[in-house]
Amino acid sequence: MFDPVAFIAAKKSGARHPPGQIRSFVQGLVGGEVADYQAAAWAMAVCFKGLDRDETVVLAEEIAASGARMDWALPDGRVVDKHSTGGVGDKVSLVAVPLAAACGLAVPKLSGRGLGITGGTLDKLESIPGMRVGLDESELRAQVAEHGLAIAAQSEAIAPADGILYALRDVTATIDSIPLIAASVMSKKLAGGASTLALDVKCGRGAFMPAYDDAFALAELMAEIGSAAGVTVRAYVSSMDHPLGRAVGNSLEVSEALEALAGEGPPDVVELALTIVAGLLRDSGARPAPRAAREAAGRALASGAAREKFASMVRSQGGDLDGFLADPPHERRRRVEVRSEAEGFVDGIDARAIGALVRSLGGGRLTKEDDVDHGVGIRILAGRGDWVDAPPGGPLAGGRSCPTPAVDRSPIWSRPRSNFLPSRRCRNR
Amino acid sequence: MFDPVAFIAAKKSGARHPPGQIRSFVQGLVGGEVADYQAAAWAMAVCFKGLDRDETVVLAEEIAASGARMDWALPDGRVVDKHSTGGVGDKVSLVAVPLAAACGLAVPKLSGRGLGITGGTLDKLESIPGMRVGLDESELRAQVAEHGLAIAAQSEAIAPADGILYALRDVTATIDSIPLIAASVMSKKLAGGASTLALDVKCGRGAFMPAYDDAFALAELMAEIGSAAGVTVRAYVSSMDHPLGRAVGNSLEVSEALEALAGEGPPDVVELALTIVAGLLRDSGARPAPRAAREAAGRALASGAAREKFASMVRSQGGDLDGFLADPPHERRRRVEVRSEAEGFVDGIDARAIGALVRSLGGGRLTKEDDVDHGVGIRILAGRGDWVDAPPGGPLAGGRSCPTPAVDRSPIWSRPRSNFLPSRRCRNR
Repeated sequence: MFDPVAFIAAKKSGARHPPGQIRSFVQGLVGGEVADYQAAAWAMAVCFKGLDRDETVVLAEEIAASGARMDWALPDGRVVDKHSTGGVGDKVSLVAVPLAAACGLAVPKLSGRGLGITGGTLDKLESIPGMRVGLDESELRAQVAEHGLAIAAQSEAIAPADGILYALRDVTATIDSIPLIAASVMSKKLAGGASTLALDVKCGRGAFMPAYDDAFALAELMAEIGSAAGVTVRAYVSSMDHPLGRAVGNSLEVSEALEALAGEGPPDVVELALTIVAGLLRDSGARPAPRAAREAAGRALASGAAREKFASMVRSQGGDLDGFLADPPHERRRRVEVRSEAEGFVDGIDARAIGALVRSLGGGRLTKEDDVDHGVGIRILAGRGDWVDAPPGGPLAGGRSCPTPAVDRSPIWSRPRSNFLPSRRCRNR
Repeated sequence: MFDPVAFIAAKKSGARHPPGQIRSFVQGLVGGEVADYQAAAWAMAVCFKGLDRDETVVLAEEIAASGARMDWALPDGRVVDKHSTGGVGDKVSLVAVPLAAACGLAVPKLSGRGLGITGGTLDKLESIPGMRVGLDESELRAQVAEHGLAIAAQSEAIAPADGILYALRDVTATIDSIPLIAASVMSKKLAGGASTLALDVKCGRGAFMPAYDDAFALAELMAEIGSAAGVTVRAYVSSMDHPLGRAVGNSLEVSEALEALAGEGPPDVVELALTIVAGLLRDSGARPAPRAAREAAGRALASGAAREKFASMVRSQGGDLDGFLADPPHERRRRVEVRSEAEGFVDGIDARAIGALVRSLGGGRLTKEDDVDHGVGIRILAGRGDWVDAPPGGPLAGGRSCPTPAVDRSPIWSRPRSNFLPSRRCRNR
């Protein structure tokens, strides 16, 4: 018989949980034998005592096994997925998913809503009139079979134990445990059934995980969970000190993603999307050679094939892209231009402050029940390295450029398949 | 607005709670604004990060303030109380309470049930036929006014926040936090309204707190909480390596307490009861001089006055003491004599093993809902220092005595009023 009190006491004392105990705990969470206050106390003990690699792998696998598991029955390795730990202005999924599909990969992406200062891909897509993200399994399968991509809400049948545990962690100050985050993310990815996965772990002041070392540890742990479950994972640690691109806010970000798909996007967004898709092409076996993978991704962007995939997806999910382009929600909002109080080069843009401002304007959520205003947002007119004039009259709009690059070129690390040693091959590429 | 998540996060990070936050937390526990899983996560954070003296004092006072507070309206200092952290064979309350009443003090003792391997005073008393421990407030007041004593169940109106928090700690492996234990015990004592208090903190293998240093820290913290609230506290740390007395089990312990009240009790039980009552007489101002206090307690025992107080209490609470004496529950049970497998002097008696055995016989509880068998128990026939013969035929019954003392003479520390420095005046008395 599983004894939840003994299980909590074991972790509190720093003991290692045997796999069978972790299985019983996860099953008890779903079955009700483990009370919510017991799960909360255990999560707090984990915050202090941690979980080792093996415990975390088992936890992720058991949470994945707590619900349905997708089987795509498609050629090996070609079903891919992409996950970001969340950032401000992070619309990379809106670019990378159609780009990967345009390169011949199948991308059934199950996504989440925004919470806190970071946006959510589903919220962004819903700024397109008519767009449905609540696809049932047969709709999801049909759309992926026909178009090769879908971005939809995770069904409640996927990893129900994660839903319970995450909701408890959210209200008991136990979110910031690296193994619990890793198990939570990876349980859903394992249940989603992709065989190749790109992870974009954000670090910096606008990220959930500000310290680089923590982000790296999280990336490494998630890659290990994937490898243990037979999924090829490549993890990137990318900077979230400054917002990605120039647009923050749901419909503004869709517009910017469309610009990127048209080959006119901000270089940091385009670069990250190309890097992620090239990695997926290599790891899935579609284009094993690095240069060929990168070139294939670049061609799919330049040819307009990726933008066509995006349009097909929106159409298939009921969205009216022409309607969005003709009358985007943010154009219906009052516009306020913020002007600089000093002259000089823009040294940095605080992603946390921008994210918090957009949320307080109604563009994000304070609780899961909140509605989101899709039209509000911030367009960054003077980017990093741009010059702004002295007051009065110096708008925070792009003026002359200074020689320092406007694109954030923070290092990106990648993790090759079947190799647990940290690899820095993509550093500063 | 009180934010439970921020409150938990503050303790998790090791911050100190301001008094107003502790008040809001306790009020939220009772009012429902703090969920049980939040209280559980907070308790686990406290297990790791602790509470300092000031936080613990405020917590105890706020828990006391969460419900009714008794006001005895009796001469200053004369309402006393006694609390033990729980031991095996610990029937000292059954002796000390009537003894204190016989010395002119008023002792409205609110008691608990046994849980785990330690017995509960209420369970013991209920082995007397007809004995009612569920007194309402007017019955309690009337009995204390007439006889000077009562031992009754704590009403649910007393410290309701403690009931909620304790029940959660019990099932989330968060019992063993010294500040949480101190606040729990003292909140009930403060609400009980006594102005003088004796605390018997057990340490050793049969105690909840095996290590001496932990027991001393708990005793010190409880004394500080009392002093901060204007209650005079004397705390003793006494050994629970071996059971107290020779009887363990509900009705067996009542019998032994009656022997002690008749002047024929085991020396360790009698000594502890006399020490506690002498301390209460000194601290209450009834007999300020140590020698006079001790002599008064001794006289009340020798004269039979204490036994008469016990009989009055039992009668007033509906109990049939003559019925108990004529046919005690343990005499109706099958008796098994355990014999020694070797000859020698008895070096020690494992209080934890004896307590666990009595519980497994049905004399204690595994959960709060369990019924208790009042008749089962163990009578120790060969005490510490006694000689037992070689097998076959060497019973574990008292034979010849060796020169080492059978009474456990572990040090007892006391804490004088209004003095926070550890005092060891009663050491080895």
